[in-house]
Amino acid sequence: MTIDDWISPPARLAETGDFSLDELRLATRNHGMPLEMLDLEVTPPGLHYVLVHYDIPLLDREAWRLVVDGHVDRPLTLGLGDLADLDPTTRRLTLECAGNGRARTSPRPISQPWLDEAVGTADWSGVLLAPLLERAGVRAGAESVVFTGADHGIERGIEQDYQRALSIDEVERGEVFLATAMNGAPLPPQHGAPVRLVVPGWYGMAHVKWLIRITILDRPFDGFQNATAYRIKRDPGDPGEPVTRIEPRALIRPPGFPDFQTRGRIVDAGRHVLTGRAWSGFAPVERVEVSSDGAATWSDAEIEPCSAPYAWQAWRSTWHAMPGPTELCVRATDAEGRTQPLEQRWNRQGMANTHVQRVPVVVR
Amino acid sequence: MTIDDWISPPARLAETGDFSLDELRLATRNHGMPLEMLDLEVTPPGLHYVLVHYDIPLLDREAWRLVVDGHVDRPLTLGLGDLADLDPTTRRLTLECAGNGRARTSPRPISQPWLDEAVGTADWSGVLLAPLLERAGVRAGAESVVFTGADHGIERGIEQDYQRALSIDEVERGEVFLATAMNGAPLPPQHGAPVRLVVPGWYGMAHVKWLIRITILDRPFDGFQNATAYRIKRDPGDPGEPVTRIEPRALIRPPGFPDFQTRGRIVDAGRHVLTGRAWSGFAPVERVEVSSDGAATWSDAEIEPCSAPYAWQAWRSTWHAMPGPTELCVRATDAEGRTQPLEQRWNRQGMANTHVQRVPVVVR
Repeated sequence: MTIDDWISPPARLAETGDFSLDELRLATRNHGMPLEMLDLEVTPPGLHYVLVHYDIPLLDREAWRLVVDGHVDRPLTLGLGDLADLDPTTRRLTLECAGNGRARTSPRPISQPWLDEAVGTADWSGVLLAPLLERAGVRAGAESVVFTGADHGIERGIEQDYQRALSIDEVERGEVFLATAMNGAPLPPQHGAPVRLVVPGWYGMAHVKWLIRITILDRPFDGFQNATAYRIKRDPGDPGEPVTRIEPRALIRPPGFPDFQTRGRIVDAGRHVLTGRAWSGFAPVERVEVSSDGAATWSDAEIEPCSAPYAWQAWRSTWHAMPGPTELCVRATDAEGRTQPLEQRWNRQGMANTHVQRVPVVVR
Repeated sequence: MTIDDWISPPARLAETGDFSLDELRLATRNHGMPLEMLDLEVTPPGLHYVLVHYDIPLLDREAWRLVVDGHVDRPLTLGLGDLADLDPTTRRLTLECAGNGRARTSPRPISQPWLDEAVGTADWSGVLLAPLLERAGVRAGAESVVFTGADHGIERGIEQDYQRALSIDEVERGEVFLATAMNGAPLPPQHGAPVRLVVPGWYGMAHVKWLIRITILDRPFDGFQNATAYRIKRDPGDPGEPVTRIEPRALIRPPGFPDFQTRGRIVDAGRHVLTGRAWSGFAPVERVEVSSDGAATWSDAEIEPCSAPYAWQAWRSTWHAMPGPTELCVRATDAEGRTQPLEQRWNRQGMANTHVQRVPVVVR
């Protein structure tokens, strides 16, 4: 056994439909939102999905410092008390892991094996980033902003602190903020205590947890998580396209009751109101379609209006359940015309896969 | 596709070392405690392990009622306000899933595939059960007490509310209580809100969540979770022995930092203080032994005394790490002489498997 035996190699694809010990190790640590929690508009910690690349660091609130440096006139070092002087904000936002749906793709990239459940919606509170950067005095020629977390590990042979960058343009849109609270309480450790980045509308990898440094660069950032990991690519040599905003998705709150092991559902015949939620990181969801015959035919669901930009919207649809087995499906389309495909949009990292959810049901 | 296609059959064994979709569906819902959280004496919700058989029910606090009936003189129906009149109690307790370690057994029973992480320690607060039963007037000849949760599902073909019973003798020991709070806050939905049973020292299956009924029987209880599911048996026809108290176990807080996918650890050469926690549902842990050479040789760790009965105890041990690969192991022995085996104690349900944890490490 040498160091090479467990330093994970470049992105791998599964050779069978079964799941490896590497995937299971991730699945027992990270967790999705049990889909019956679609009943809740706001997801509590412990039910909201969590994906952590390395170990969860436990940071001392008193000792915590945020450094703002790089291409600025006045580098800053701030404690939690200093953040209180900045513009406060609270946003209800749906967050989703970029790898949601990965375990349903074929061939399956080896990584955290999400089915459909890597999502959650919370009220994130904190302070806006733009005024803080103004205080630091970002110099002309700034191109990117690198956010560094306190979590440290090795990934495909590259030892690193978790780092993700946004372009200066994205930051200057004014939506990005530093969250110190989730649903009105201090951040739990697994969600980035004491401070995490929040990038409304973006997949989870952008929302850097355990934030300790913000560095302005006068060039693009070429770190692992931006340049290698979170890319949509089909071939190993393909530079690919960056993963950014959340593609539209709708989920059904599985009706009836489950079998413990298979999670198959048993439903009584008759009239049911199917419910669920739908979201998009690009624009409000404008259409939700439901199928109760395995995607053969579709009907439009009623959708609640967006309560907040990038927060999920509740939908409902009546279903007259006839005895026998069937499959319930749902798909969302947003105001910019983005929609969910019936077949996978395969890529080597298993990112941004929003093929429609299928809920097998037996009506009795 | 018929109802039989996803009603899980009698207990199955895996045919390969890889994990099935049935197992993954459970693993993305339920979650363990990330092992670096062994740093914390008290585990917050979201980091404490969770195992839910069916769906998590969302119960209304105002509408919640607890019925006490069966072999009693005065059946009761109580709301949350009525519980305030009963004797309050707070206990720091380690809870562990009876299936912890299942995914490391061979051949592997198909169910929730835990590795080592299905554990957590919390401060559970509520009211003692014995005075409540006294108020109801348990009749002479009572034999068992059945606890029913509001969660409903089907398991190996048997549709059921989740139910577990304790003998009247176990209840009359006076330790069992109804918890309304975890770590000083109302129970989160996934831990049984608004009220769950707590049975100090027992594996998790006894701690019935979303408790709505307590029924006294003048005979033994033969429900599925007592008579079929939570049994230590080697053959399908074997009636087996009931799963009860938590067998001793110690865990190492993995040192160094991880590889994202394999969770293998990288550690710098030199002196390290290894830490972790150990527990037993029978008696205090009296001895913790650590091996840094893959269980070839062992040395005793220092152990903190028990802060509360059935709460885990911190341990520490110095390790002089020499460059190269190795495997760290730990095992606990309690005051009644129970200890952890090096090899699995195989049984068909994968229950109470406490073979020693092995943490592969490369020292650099």
